[in-house]
Amino acid sequence: MNAPAVVLLSGGMDSATTLAVARRDGFACHALSFRYGQRHAVELDAARQVAAALGAVNHVVLDVDLRAFGGSALTADHAVPKDRPLDAMGDEVPITYVPARNTIFLSFALAWAETLGAYDLFIGANALDYSGYPDCRPEYLEAFDRLANLATKAGVEATARGSRAFRVHAPLLRLTKAEIVRLGGELGVDYGLTRSCYDPAPDGAACGRCDACRLRLKGFREAGLADPAPYHAGVA
Amino acid sequence: MNAPAVVLLSGGMDSATTLAVARRDGFACHALSFRYGQRHAVELDAARQVAAALGAVNHVVLDVDLRAFGGSALTADHAVPKDRPLDAMGDEVPITYVPARNTIFLSFALAWAETLGAYDLFIGANALDYSGYPDCRPEYLEAFDRLANLATKAGVEATARGSRAFRVHAPLLRLTKAEIVRLGGELGVDYGLTRSCYDPAPDGAACGRCDACRLRLKGFREAGLADPAPYHAGVA
Repeated sequence: MNAPAVVLLSGGMDSATTLAVARRDGFACHALSFRYGQRHAVELDAARQVAAALGAVNHVVLDVDLRAFGGSALTADHAVPKDRPLDAMGDEVPITYVPARNTIFLSFALAWAETLGAYDLFIGANALDYSGYPDCRPEYLEAFDRLANLATKAGVEATARGSRAFRVHAPLLRLTKAEIVRLGGELGVDYGLTRSCYDPAPDGAACGRCDACRLRLKGFREAGLADPAPYHAGVA
Repeated sequence: MNAPAVVLLSGGMDSATTLAVARRDGFACHALSFRYGQRHAVELDAARQVAAALGAVNHVVLDVDLRAFGGSALTADHAVPKDRPLDAMGDEVPITYVPARNTIFLSFALAWAETLGAYDLFIGANALDYSGYPDCRPEYLEAFDRLANLATKAGVEATARGSRAFRVHAPLLRLTKAEIVRLGGELGVDYGLTRSCYDPAPDGAACGRCDACRLRLKGFREAGLADPAPYHAGVA
């Protein structure tokens, strides 16, 4: 029987590729998404389709109301910046930063994992492209591993008997977007199902001009592939 | 102006005492509670009253649906054990353990703190009485501090400039229940507002027989005080 794993799934290309990696590595994947007041709920439809297409055992969508605290472009009514040069995205913390988001998401993933008897959590964090998110760095993910094994009955018991304990896998951590596109292509990811845009049209078509779209399109371009996702007429 | 802090508030006596300590220490307290499918929603009414009585700046109740994952007496339909000897509670992980609960709660507290510009989180964790919860131990709380300062923009920036960073305060960590009762009494906590019972009657009266009631009553007894909270006729 395949070991169970919990995979964070946003509907974007990185988490879809991560789910494909977890499946390739032999895990029975339990996909977890969040409805957290983001404007682009079209992502959640994408997540559902991606989970089904990549054979997830099941897919849970949790409501978490981050709007109660305010503070980010993904949850509040800030303008999404358009047409920014990609080299301007590097060092600063992006406007789309959501306080403690990955910590909240990984905490729920940990809770589900312990309930399932799983020890493996997968996240599509990436430290190369768009590296301004503090909670996508290797040292952050290592600190979460440590916390997870102190926080839980299963982690404490596994550590005490010297066996396999909780671990956060971030298989895309050091890949460029182009490498991610190629990896997903090899693993059969249908990127036509995935959505990355911070400001999609009501029909789900991507804007092609926000940071996420620009990074994604650059990745496909560098991989020598066309992005199969829908864009507004005139872009991409 | 008083520095802001986020205080986790359950409606029980420990978190009420913790809020009183945070106020004594000069913090402007933002109280945070969770509606997570627990059977005793009477706790949330208690939390509201405690927050008001102890001068919290505000009080947010977040919905988090831990029932989606199953696995605990506080969220599922397990029987609550009654009349257990107190010395049977020590070492095992309690049946009321909820996977990763404090990690989820502290993650939300961290998100709110960063939004507020606060660096101080308060939790009523106690490692002495009823110490079977892995996520109430000092090493767990220290690991969360470390994580918080890697996870967030504010934590990374504070660490870089060598200034005050996120810290989880657990002022009750090494106190007995009797010491907590005495401390709260000195700080003006009205324990008549607080609720601890795992199995309260519809009118909110405590059962007097579950682990939480027995620990609480023992604390009052040892402190030489009467518990002002309502109990079923015939107990306490």
